[in-house]
Parts: sequence; structure tokens; C-alpha cells
Amino acid sequence: MKDQASVLRETDGEARKLARTLLRSARYAAIAVLDLGTGFPFASRVLLGTDIDGVPVILVSGLSTHTRALDADRRASLLTGEPGKGDPLAYARLTTQCLAEPVERDSEAHARIRNRFLNRHAKAKLYIDFPDFRFFRLVPQSASLNGGFGRAYLLEGSDLTIRSEANEAVAANADAIVQELLARHPDLATTVATGMKAGSGDWRICGVDCAGFDLILGDLLLRHEFETVAQGVDELYSHIPNIKYSIPEI
Amino acid sequence: MKDQASVLRETDGEARKLARTLLRSARYAAIAVLDLGTGFPFASRVLLGTDIDGVPVILVSGLSTHTRALDADRRASLLTGEPGKGDPLAYARLTTQCLAEPVERDSEAHARIRNRFLNRHAKAKLYIDFPDFRFFRLVPQSASLNGGFGRAYLLEGSDLTIRSEANEAVAANADAIVQELLARHPDLATTVATGMKAGSGDWRICGVDCAGFDLILGDLLLRHEFETVAQGVDELYSHIPNIKYSIPEI
Repeated sequence: MKDQASVLRETDGEARKLARTLLRSARYAAIAVLDLGTGFPFASRVLLGTDIDGVPVILVSGLSTHTRALDADRRASLLTGEPGKGDPLAYARLTTQCLAEPVERDSEAHARIRNRFLNRHAKAKLYIDFPDFRFFRLVPQSASLNGGFGRAYLLEGSDLTIRSEANEAVAANADAIVQELLARHPDLATTVATGMKAGSGDWRICGVDCAGFDLILGDLLLRHEFETVAQGVDELYSHIPNIKYSIPEI
Repeated sequence: MKDQASVLRETDGEARKLARTLLRSARYAAIAVLDLGTGFPFASRVLLGTDIDGVPVILVSGLSTHTRALDADRRASLLTGEPGKGDPLAYARLTTQCLAEPVERDSEAHARIRNRFLNRHAKAKLYIDFPDFRFFRLVPQSASLNGGFGRAYLLEGSDLTIRSEANEAVAANADAIVQELLARHPDLATTVATGMKAGSGDWRICGVDCAGFDLILGDLLLRHEFETVAQGVDELYSHIPNIKYSIPEI
């Protein structure tokens, strides 16, 4: 532990924001589970969404190895943050240790998660309602942020979840809230995307919650995090004029 | 098991070739290990190389979570095969279940692996000789190929290793063999890369073994697999005129 401590940095607000952004802007992730029977770790790829409280969600086939593993042992690990040009290890990535919760098909949570997932992954409509496809919420327990060489931070699960009394209201009125955001700021999506140097184009808000919103353009997904978590819908609107158009850097 | 069997296809030569290509052309991978202490699966990112027998190798810091995990439990899983544009799940990927073998620093194996790794990851020379950096060989025990929706194949560890009496000779004479290849076929690298629709450019052969060779251009890595494994250096040369310039498709 002494050795590990020597490379760990103190976890600050910027590190937490980067971690949340890496998790919430990931279209897909590597998931590690415990293989049923052998106990081996098993790494595979999953599409990723988020629930209204920031908890990552996966849509998986009951036929797949990771699904059968999660049915037997809830422990999972998600790797998010993809490399770009140059050294892959120079790019920030996040390992999130999670406990999987199955989402019952006829539940309110399922409807909410399904809706948010389809807004992000439109093509999933081809199979999202197949009887063998299910959602899991992967509730963060802790996380490890690697911001590049020598930049390691430990986070708590609560650093990655959104605690707000307005979660339910925002989920129930998401479409109306996005319309209101765009009514107040018609060029909001493009302005934020351009500020993040993501290039111009027909960016669309594909998800909103009390901690920020998600932007999508084709294969690209961006996450805008508010400075603080909104505790009501009005407070959420109030964040918009204060948006800083920058990606956190550590 | 009945459910899984229903989506599995019979593993044929094309599936094996695709699997080998996914493993041997990966610059980096997600690795899953068993976290020391908690027993959780833990997913992180590692640079990837291969040893002369096709066994994947990683260069890791003793300070990292995955290294301490592997010291306590040798079991690991590698996910290779990166998505491109469009649906991430439409792209083939390979999960390789491995047992990790530490590579002793002053061994012949270390010199061979170090040399091959630097040919592929030139920037690693900045830290490859740091006292806390070590190599592991991740010896494949089995693998699971997902070639896209409904295209699942199981492989044996031996499908991913190169068994040839010429392995040692090829490793010891790799530079000379590459020179001889290029003397016989000066445009070999570019021709193969173009055949793989990887674009033209100053492609370089960065690794050769009895089953094929690796091509590199900046951040891009390609794998050319021979039709059969060469059992001698002359047989290796004899594969070159017969190269088929296509990527395996399943």
C-alpha cells in the first residue's frame, strides 16, 4: 500500500469532474466480471448508458457470458475513456468498481432507463425489447482514475452518483426540460460542443439529469457537467447561462 | 450451457485467423484481473506486445493495481479489437483467458520480449528499464471470439500460440530476416497494408514470427498472418509470394 500511495494524488474537484465525464460520455465500455464456473476474470464489451442518478447501465443478452456471470456474482468493473492518437496510456481512463442490480422489465425504472438508453443508442431499438435482453444498473462502489502517467486518483462510489431531490422530476419531464433549455438557448448544443473542441455539426441533447447533459452527433458523445448538482428543475435551468465551455484537464 | 450453445458457431479456420489477427494487431487492450484483497474483477488498460510464440505480453509498473493483482493471482482476461464508426458491437472483438507468467529481468526471454516490444512501442524506451517495470507473458488458455451479433466462437489457447521449431531461430535473427524479406520484396510492407485497405504510407515491419508479421505506421498496427505456420526460416520466406492481400471476414 505504501507503494501505491506514493503515486496517488489527492482527489480534488477537477479529478472528480474528469472521472464523471469519462463515465458519462462513454458510448461503450470494457466490462470485467467473474466467469461463472472458472472464477476467472472475464473482459468483454458492452454498450453503456446512464440512469437518472448517474449510475451506469448496460443492456445485455441473457445468452452472453457477462450476463450469466452477473446473475451469479454481482461484482463488475467498467473501463471507460478511449485513447486517441499517440500513446494510448497518455489518455485518461476510469475504472469503476460496481455492484450490478438487475432491472425488472415491467418496472418504472425499466421504462426510464429504456427511454434514456434509446435516446443515446437509437439502433438498440432493433433488439431492446427482445425477451432475452435485460438491463443492469451497475452501482459504483469505488473508482480509480488514471489521468496519464503518474496521475492516479481514488474515488468513492458516491463521487459518481447524482444525489438530487429532483432526479425523479427531471426523469419524468426530460423531453420538456430539453425543449425549455433549447427555447432559452437555441444554440446550446452546438455552442457547448464547439467549446469542447468537438467540432461543429447538428449536435443534439440526448440526455439530461441534475448534474448535466449529454450531447450526441453520430458516433460522438459528449458530457457537459454543471458546476453543482441541481436540486430542482429551476436550478437546473439556472446553470445554463453559467456554462464554462471547457473540458476539465488535470 | 444449452442457451450459450445455441448462439455458438463451429470454430473454423477463418474464425481462428480472425482471432489471432485481433490479438496480434492490438496496440493495447483492456485487461481484467482479480483485485487483491476485494476479489472484485478489475478492468484497466495495458500496452500489448507479443512474444515470438504469439503469447501476448504486457509491460506494467509494479505500482499499478493490475500488477499487484497478477502477483497474487495469475488469472487474467484480455479484450482486444477496437470499434470503429457506427455500432461498437458490430465490430469483432476477442476475449482471451490467460495465465500470467512473470518474465525474469536478466533472462533470455526478457531480452527477446524487450526487443520485440520496443519495435512496436518505441516510446516505451522512456520507462522500459525502470526498476519497477516488468513484463508478464499472458499465456492463452481459451478464448471467446465475438464476430458481431450472433457470431460467437470458442477457441482453445493453442489456437492463439505459435508452435514452430523455428521460433528461437526467428527471434534470434529477426532483423536479418526482415532485411531479407525486404530484399526479396522491397515494397512488401506497403503492398500488404494497401491490400488490407489500411492506406498508403511508410509502413514498416515491426515484428516477424513463424506465423506472420506485424506492420506499423504511426499509431496503426496491422497483422499479416501466413496461411500456415513456418517450421523453418526458408519456409517463412516461401510464404511471401503467396500472400493474399485481404483481411479475414467471417
